[in-house]
Amino acid sequence: MIFTELSTPTLLLEKEKLIANISRMQASADRLGVQLRPHLKTMKAARAAELLIASGASGITVSTLKEADYFFEHGFTDITYAVGMVPAKLAEAARLIARGADLKIMTDSPEVAQVIATDANQNGTVYKLLIEIDCGDNRGGLQPDSDELLQIAALIDSSSAHLQGVLTHAGQSYGVDNIAAIEEIAEQEREAVVQAATRLRAAGFTVETVSLGSTPTALYARDLSGVTELRAGVYTVFDIDQQSRGVCTTEEVALSVLSCVIGHNKAAGKILLDAGGLALSKDRSADKFRPEVGYGQICSPDGSIIPGLYVTSVSQEHGHVRVRDESDYALFPVGSQLRVLPVHACMTAAAYDHFNVIENGVVGEKWDRVNGW
Amino acid sequence: MIFTELSTPTLLLEKEKLIANISRMQASADRLGVQLRPHLKTMKAARAAELLIASGASGITVSTLKEADYFFEHGFTDITYAVGMVPAKLAEAARLIARGADLKIMTDSPEVAQVIATDANQNGTVYKLLIEIDCGDNRGGLQPDSDELLQIAALIDSSSAHLQGVLTHAGQSYGVDNIAAIEEIAEQEREAVVQAATRLRAAGFTVETVSLGSTPTALYARDLSGVTELRAGVYTVFDIDQQSRGVCTTEEVALSVLSCVIGHNKAAGKILLDAGGLALSKDRSADKFRPEVGYGQICSPDGSIIPGLYVTSVSQEHGHVRVRDESDYALFPVGSQLRVLPVHACMTAAAYDHFNVIENGVVGEKWDRVNGW
Repeated sequence: MIFTELSTPTLLLEKEKLIANISRMQASADRLGVQLRPHLKTMKAARAAELLIASGASGITVSTLKEADYFFEHGFTDITYAVGMVPAKLAEAARLIARGADLKIMTDSPEVAQVIATDANQNGTVYKLLIEIDCGDNRGGLQPDSDELLQIAALIDSSSAHLQGVLTHAGQSYGVDNIAAIEEIAEQEREAVVQAATRLRAAGFTVETVSLGSTPTALYARDLSGVTELRAGVYTVFDIDQQSRGVCTTEEVALSVLSCVIGHNKAAGKILLDAGGLALSKDRSADKFRPEVGYGQICSPDGSIIPGLYVTSVSQEHGHVRVRDESDYALFPVGSQLRVLPVHACMTAAAYDHFNVIENGVVGEKWDRVNGW
Repeated sequence: MIFTELSTPTLLLEKEKLIANISRMQASADRLGVQLRPHLKTMKAARAAELLIASGASGITVSTLKEADYFFEHGFTDITYAVGMVPAKLAEAARLIARGADLKIMTDSPEVAQVIATDANQNGTVYKLLIEIDCGDNRGGLQPDSDELLQIAALIDSSSAHLQGVLTHAGQSYGVDNIAAIEEIAEQEREAVVQAATRLRAAGFTVETVSLGSTPTALYARDLSGVTELRAGVYTVFDIDQQSRGVCTTEEVALSVLSCVIGHNKAAGKILLDAGGLALSKDRSADKFRPEVGYGQICSPDGSIIPGLYVTSVSQEHGHVRVRDESDYALFPVGSQLRVLPVHACMTAAAYDHFNVIENGVVGEKWDRVNGW
């Protein structure tokens, strides 16, 4: 397979693998008896959201209000914005709701909840609020036994805004590399968010949504009693980071960067690619379990892995590939194409405004993406 | 200074600092008696190129053909594309030349030189070719004493293409943190490219351009005898990476990311920002000399450094800031704005399609940027 019509570096998406990954996660949600609300932070593409909804997803999750706006414009109305709301962004959320979006917003701050409640009372906007819970990720969120949990619920419940429920994310699941450890984290994630929901209900509040998820925990949770929905995003295309943790196989990675060999530095023992730090991102999340991978796993143009060949270092527009031996120069001449499986799909894809979709072995459609803020 | 009109995260550019940085480098080129061809890979903005040319730059350098096209469309004709040419991109270069661009292209590959020579003979395009030299960076380039140097020169010189000269880049200058070491690398850079030019001239070839540069060596070279032009890019705005190496002061950094506090995770000892891995990039180049900086140095909205406050970790849309003590929560409430000085300006800026330009203390113009490929 030679992609002569594509200028490099550019992003390739294998549609059959994408569809298989979508089915795998939907089956996991079905098995666990919860709804699936995929996180579009990875794909940022309406065409991907269509496939997700068609496969059974109940709605979508986004990481920016620009994504929310883009997906709403493309006909998706049931949207959770799963990054902490701030007062300065409330007007944009209100505009989306006024236009018909069923938007859910989130905070872990009583101060922000107070602003939301006041704004709802003054302007009549029915903000649907999720309270963020920290289940051990140590990113955003309240401890499930915190006083602020009830304080926020009371503030919202007594206003024109709507208390929607609770939400958590076990980002710590990216830090382990075996299924038993993932299962344990999935149970911590469930316990934290269910504990928060239980406390709210005991205090008399209605809790409709009990939401959790990360790709590893969503795939390997054994039980989600008390949970209503799963969120996850990177599973749509996977990456070497996920592969290094045993969450997927290399063959399931649906995303790659098509690049071109631009030089051989034989004195330095390197092949140079036109995919560097900007084209691949400088994410090194696979280092913990597969440090040899560097900035990406090299594949041939047909997608088959080339063992032992990695993007070992990068500068802005150069990927440096340490050759295994001298014969690599003849195998990969200047001008030839190579593909790179990304370390972290979300970070890599963000450098591109579209996917080149491969279906039945040929490049067909271009799918646009929404980047930035 | 509160940027209430700007949605976060977004990119701020301090115009007075930009102009001072441009003047500093132009003065260095003038002192060394060479022309300055700034690298627009950092700014990727026509408005910045205008300031550079007005300050005395002889032309521009770009890192992608998309940049070349963008700057040509904005009236800049003298352009060096300083990443190795490949056969698949030659038609795009030919189109730019046909439209009137004075485009210089580069290779270190005899095979590519042969393709360029043949294409020039067949299509009449007068490609101007620079031969890339490796001065110790171990990225692209031929050793100055290599046989291929004369081989490429002969291939081009005997064709309808034009042998323009030689070019090198001392990327290793980013690996040291004292001026004496930078001076030494600058001399290695000069020696390598002058040696290559001397060999070519001794063999009867005309060498018009002898080009070198990196921000550290361009600022601190003591002598550039035999060199015709300097290239550098990141000096326009500088960053913490350059500051960590002693190349600039923190006060000279002209670029920052405006962000908003989206949460306090007191149990984890963290302030959360809405500027994460995508908004800041995952570049960690400052680690070698300032590991405490993480993903960026925090400043107040007016740009003054907040000592000891850094973006200590990131996820896609979250910047995690380890608080110094409990009083930081009151100092930086949820909803307040903070600025982040980037570790690596080129990588950070690439996530944004425009700069918000600050002049006389207020946000005024928006300058568009050209990203991608």
